[in-house]
Amino acid sequence: MATNSLHASVRTLASAIRGLSIDGVQKANSGHPGLPLGLADLGALLFSNVLKHNPATPSWPDRDRFVLSAGHGSMFIYSLLHLSGYKLSLDDLKAFRQLGSLTPGHPEFGLTDGVETTTGPLGAGFANAVGMAMAETILAARFNTADHTIVDHYTYTIAGDGCLMEGVSAEAASFAGHQGFGKLIAFYDSNRITIEGETGLAFTEDVALRFEAYGWQILRASGYDLGAIEAQIAAAKAETGKPSLIVLDTIIGYGSPNKAGSHEVHGAPLGADEIKATKLALGLNPELDFDVAPAVQSFIAEQAKGWKKSYQAWQDLFAAWSKANPALKDSWDIAHGIKAAPAITWPTWAVGTKLATRSASGQSIQSAAAALPHLIGGSADLAPSNNTDIKNGGHFQKDSRSGRNLHFGVREHGMGNIVNGIVLHQGLKCYGATFMVFADYMRPAIRLAAIMKIPSIFVFTHDSFWVGEDGPTHQPVEHLASLRSMSNLEVLRPADAEETAYAWELALAKGIGTHHAAHANQRERALTSFDPTTGPVVLALTRQNLTVFVKPADWKESVKNFGAYLALATTNADTVILATGSELGAALTAAEKLNSEGKKVQVLSIPSMERFRAARRAKKLPGAFLPTSAKLYAVEAGHYFSWAGLVEEENFLGVSRFGESGPGEKVAAHFCIDAQGVADLVNGKL
Amino acid sequence: MATNSLHASVRTLASAIRGLSIDGVQKANSGHPGLPLGLADLGALLFSNVLKHNPATPSWPDRDRFVLSAGHGSMFIYSLLHLSGYKLSLDDLKAFRQLGSLTPGHPEFGLTDGVETTTGPLGAGFANAVGMAMAETILAARFNTADHTIVDHYTYTIAGDGCLMEGVSAEAASFAGHQGFGKLIAFYDSNRITIEGETGLAFTEDVALRFEAYGWQILRASGYDLGAIEAQIAAAKAETGKPSLIVLDTIIGYGSPNKAGSHEVHGAPLGADEIKATKLALGLNPELDFDVAPAVQSFIAEQAKGWKKSYQAWQDLFAAWSKANPALKDSWDIAHGIKAAPAITWPTWAVGTKLATRSASGQSIQSAAAALPHLIGGSADLAPSNNTDIKNGGHFQKDSRSGRNLHFGVREHGMGNIVNGIVLHQGLKCYGATFMVFADYMRPAIRLAAIMKIPSIFVFTHDSFWVGEDGPTHQPVEHLASLRSMSNLEVLRPADAEETAYAWELALAKGIGTHHAAHANQRERALTSFDPTTGPVVLALTRQNLTVFVKPADWKESVKNFGAYLALATTNADTVILATGSELGAALTAAEKLNSEGKKVQVLSIPSMERFRAARRAKKLPGAFLPTSAKLYAVEAGHYFSWAGLVEEENFLGVSRFGESGPGEKVAAHFCIDAQGVADLVNGKL
Repeated sequence: MATNSLHASVRTLASAIRGLSIDGVQKANSGHPGLPLGLADLGALLFSNVLKHNPATPSWPDRDRFVLSAGHGSMFIYSLLHLSGYKLSLDDLKAFRQLGSLTPGHPEFGLTDGVETTTGPLGAGFANAVGMAMAETILAARFNTADHTIVDHYTYTIAGDGCLMEGVSAEAASFAGHQGFGKLIAFYDSNRITIEGETGLAFTEDVALRFEAYGWQILRASGYDLGAIEAQIAAAKAETGKPSLIVLDTIIGYGSPNKAGSHEVHGAPLGADEIKATKLALGLNPELDFDVAPAVQSFIAEQAKGWKKSYQAWQDLFAAWSKANPALKDSWDIAHGIKAAPAITWPTWAVGTKLATRSASGQSIQSAAAALPHLIGGSADLAPSNNTDIKNGGHFQKDSRSGRNLHFGVREHGMGNIVNGIVLHQGLKCYGATFMVFADYMRPAIRLAAIMKIPSIFVFTHDSFWVGEDGPTHQPVEHLASLRSMSNLEVLRPADAEETAYAWELALAKGIGTHHAAHANQRERALTSFDPTTGPVVLALTRQNLTVFVKPADWKESVKNFGAYLALATTNADTVILATGSELGAALTAAEKLNSEGKKVQVLSIPSMERFRAARRAKKLPGAFLPTSAKLYAVEAGHYFSWAGLVEEENFLGVSRFGESGPGEKVAAHFCIDAQGVADLVNGKL
Repeated sequence: MATNSLHASVRTLASAIRGLSIDGVQKANSGHPGLPLGLADLGALLFSNVLKHNPATPSWPDRDRFVLSAGHGSMFIYSLLHLSGYKLSLDDLKAFRQLGSLTPGHPEFGLTDGVETTTGPLGAGFANAVGMAMAETILAARFNTADHTIVDHYTYTIAGDGCLMEGVSAEAASFAGHQGFGKLIAFYDSNRITIEGETGLAFTEDVALRFEAYGWQILRASGYDLGAIEAQIAAAKAETGKPSLIVLDTIIGYGSPNKAGSHEVHGAPLGADEIKATKLALGLNPELDFDVAPAVQSFIAEQAKGWKKSYQAWQDLFAAWSKANPALKDSWDIAHGIKAAPAITWPTWAVGTKLATRSASGQSIQSAAAALPHLIGGSADLAPSNNTDIKNGGHFQKDSRSGRNLHFGVREHGMGNIVNGIVLHQGLKCYGATFMVFADYMRPAIRLAAIMKIPSIFVFTHDSFWVGEDGPTHQPVEHLASLRSMSNLEVLRPADAEETAYAWELALAKGIGTHHAAHANQRERALTSFDPTTGPVVLALTRQNLTVFVKPADWKESVKNFGAYLALATTNADTVILATGSELGAALTAAEKLNSEGKKVQVLSIPSMERFRAARRAKKLPGAFLPTSAKLYAVEAGHYFSWAGLVEEENFLGVSRFGESGPGEKVAAHFCIDAQGVADLVNGKL
């Protein structure tokens, strides 16, 4: 298509986006028309003539990724998905923001085809895009050959002022600049308007200069000059050693004659009158809602031929590559979950061995990494403490894209969303690590992984006051409870090295979960739901040594099914001590002492509270675990809330206030978190 | 003192800092010698001849503030505090990182004189410093007169590579640049080393250029050229319209002959041999530990004369100002808690009035702001939604320092730590606001406020799935539980407008808490502790309307003492429904219906779970609240963990999984969070 004719068609498509977006928001009487109006031209250009995609096969592995980081502008992407032929009908658009629809208030990964990640919390999508671009770089280095380039796609993202004010985008941008991701192209929707008013109220920094400082290429265009946008995208692609930020000069609500350029148009319907005025100004029929001009449909039909062709060409390329590289194809299939992964030979330890679960985790990572080349990961500058390095795995850097050790820098929040982006891209398993207390820095990323049910793995070491001398700022207290209160997330807190290796086995077995729209007209209690086969995992690991203990034969099966097993089974037990992680040892020692004094105490190890609670709710717990009428106690170096509904507060020995700076053993003794404390608890002496 | 002689003395002091720091870390066998060694010259210069302070009166309101954002280098500040005459003995230094000491692993506000804020979590201290500089600007605008300048001090902070990689410092730096805080001087300890190794692994951005983009003045000096550092501090002071970043070229572990410049010296003791070698190289006696040369003491004694003189001069100035400006002096005394604040005339509402608690909060803010000129606050770009604007309060900006409305931008984490910095500075009450779901973005700041027991106020509106159409990313679920699991923090969730005004009254009544070292040799359970008179507050407020209901006469007293009151008292009640916030209405309606059917149900409103639990633990709850043998139910649009130990899970109607996008009422009906649901719960039909 000649440029003039193409641009005319793109503009028609842009008008259709504007029309559908304002209609969608109006019908819902809720939503954000400002962004779709302001960026419709960009969106139309991207989806019709820039993106490598095939709406008929949204899972095409080599598609370009598109992330609307400014997720509140969801009608922008819904309109585009509908118009370009993804599985999203006009009726779906009409159900915008309604219970049970495919068009929720913010785009949700897994629910709506073509939505690459769940966005809305600002800055997160931008960081996801960094992760996706990173995954492309890694897969390209691994799978492309001299003869066949099967991985070759771009990641585009749209970020608004809000996204770029958030620290998480700053962290991710600095990382992307350091890494020089040349195939990451970010559009900055610079409309100078935020919810409180002009950006001049709080945001007068020179964003372009800041990104230059990060090592990005800076490009500029009017948001309404299609030729300029095309030229800048070409310039972005031409710079292969740096990510590009295309600063788009835009007007929020562009096209709305009376509301464009004002913060009123950001997050409220235009109203019937202004919608008519807008449609008139855009050359749309003001009397019709959700109307799409035939010219738009024929334009898309024309473009779809090209999409299909390029998809078919890739299929052919992939087939040829597969034939020429059977070993690589095998790796590809394993990495993409098409073929089962080879069995991992987990490390073993003799009973009585003393080592920290962070060390056991480090050894487990070596085993897993040896069997699974698609396992990568790293830490937010704490690898030596988190024990997360893959030995001989190399460092992932600009000049070494095959490196498996990722250096995220001291950027926990960025790390969380980059890991999510890598996992969302597919083709890799990825973990990110830090001290557990700093889970707070990245909590929004963990939550997004949980909402999306994606199997990101978060390795959190130094999981209690046993951190010791670093003191209260570094000692987790409420973190186990606050993480366990998050749906879809599994928190595995192993009690020794063996439980640690098995925790890794459970973590690596997870895949991406399925999503369904709610049953709009059904009443149901919003009870905890937990599916052990999907979603993110937190591994809560110790700094200090724990002793490997004897386990029953079926302990792994029991953990898998019930989240727990009897670490010490006692006939006719009248007392059960529930424990996790580093406190299990104290529980075992106390129980043995109590039993030697004639008591009948048994100990339940619960590495997965989520599986345990799910089995309990389903009334599937083995009767031997918690004999009826047995008195229940629990010990865990964390807040009582984790034990809600399981154990009475007076029977819980834990840490429900901030920690203390001192050697771990001294703090433990001070807090009675030891065998003596557990025995005193059971004896009613505490 | 002549420059040469002064510098010689400063270098002697620097050597003493180095000696004490490496001895402290060695004796503790834990800690971070790299920073104190690297920055001892800067520290010696600052504390001896730059800072306006008087170690004998650390609470001098017009002292310069010094924040060690890189808090892991705590021996740096402990050495300096000891050497310059703060209340910290050599024995305290010898107890570094020991249980019960005044020298914990990271500096703790309130525990150790001269520590202005608790640091350790990276980037937070930097943002606190921005808040302190902001407070100075505000107080200067309010209290200085043409004749008397009683507020005139600088805020200094030291940030390392780690601090500046964190997004929170980026947010705060952008804000400080926008605001042009000319009396904020940050030293960037650019030693190019992090825990994983060289900063080249993950951090190659141009930090100086980035800060230039934020609007900062950039200055540079060697960390070992005292004249250059002095010159740059002078240049920083000369630029009154911009904050200054002094990039210090340093060597981590400077002075250690064999370990300087390596990441090994960051966080581990030097070892006995290297300590000797270091002391020899520094001209210290290698055979003596914790030794301070007499020349150091005489230098400090000399400087102390000047400190005392300048403190006395300020006292005279302040006395003259007080005499000349009695009304201002009155305001000062109220703002600093010296005089009681005037009574606030809270708004009132007629029973039956329907309004959101965020609106009632907005009205309460007007009442409080009218009575308390020292109350300021703002939102992370959501003021119109959070209802936090002080009407006619003006906007705080570069050119309007008397404005009371703070525009933090979309920077929740920065906001949290800036609010903390303002509160720590003293002289102002301050709140920061956002949607409750984004409490996750600023959780580390809330935690620090809680650890410090400072009365920062966090206004979190849109506190449940009632957010509605914005969907799961914007609907809090686990947030109430995860916030309530934090020690020292009070989460107030009012059930109508009247409870909201009273929540503000309780929030504003809080002050800074006291801190005590732990009793090292005592065993005690780490139970929840809660002191209602101190610490931060979260106000959890609704987006949607709630109806003002009739209350018993003593309800406020009851909330104050017990966190709860009987919103519906029933004689011989055999069933109690516990509820908070927006679910109280459903509980009341359900109870009335059930009672009309012959049941005996009463309803307990619990705006403060913390007070309620504290009273319950102390066995001080009125017997009428929870009659023995009454069956307990609870309804709250949040996760079950909040109700640990209070109500069985099957008797709890809440939301323990992610939300849904749709109109609030529809989602409520879908989740059974309505009067019908509560009645069904009590009737065992759910």
